[in-house]
Amino acid sequence: MYIIAMYDVGEKRVGKMLKLLRRYLNWIQNSVFEGEISEVKLLELKHKAMLIMDEKADSLIIFKTRQEKWLDKEIVGLERQELDTFL
Amino acid sequence: MYIIAMYDVGEKRVGKMLKLLRRYLNWIQNSVFEGEISEVKLLELKHKAMLIMDEKADSLIIFKTRQEKWLDKEIVGLERQELDTFL
Repeated sequence: MYIIAMYDVGEKRVGKMLKLLRRYLNWIQNSVFEGEISEVKLLELKHKAMLIMDEKADSLIIFKTRQEKWLDKEIVGLERQELDTFL
Repeated sequence: MYIIAMYDVGEKRVGKMLKLLRRYLNWIQNSVFEGEISEVKLLELKHKAMLIMDEKADSLIIFKTRQEKWLDKEIVGLERQELDTFL
């Protein structure tokens, strides 16, 4: 399964979420990640995210597609910023 | 065509990008939007985005899929924040 995941969490939890998501997916922009992941690993990721998140204030949105080829990615402007530049 | 679009632009250009994208798509989180859009409208959107963006610093990533049903969306935590809360 191929997913795009994006979080919107309180400032205090950004670092932890970033670290967590980087363990499972590839960072593409700001708080957005993408990558191939198994059902089991995704469950694990969601479980761990919920432990970090404040459910009343934070959110994590996941778009899933069975095949990566069903998704076309296009980038306008800068291809990629180094992770360091926004940390 | 169904798309997910996300921008990462300098602070000065955030307001303009937000306003532009909201004219074409639905806001879902931070700088992330989704929606059904035609090829022509997408070209128009990209053209207008490029006029706002600083190509050396900003980026706009677009994921496209021919059919919305190929994408599954899941939200962990807060379902939706009002636009006002992050403006």
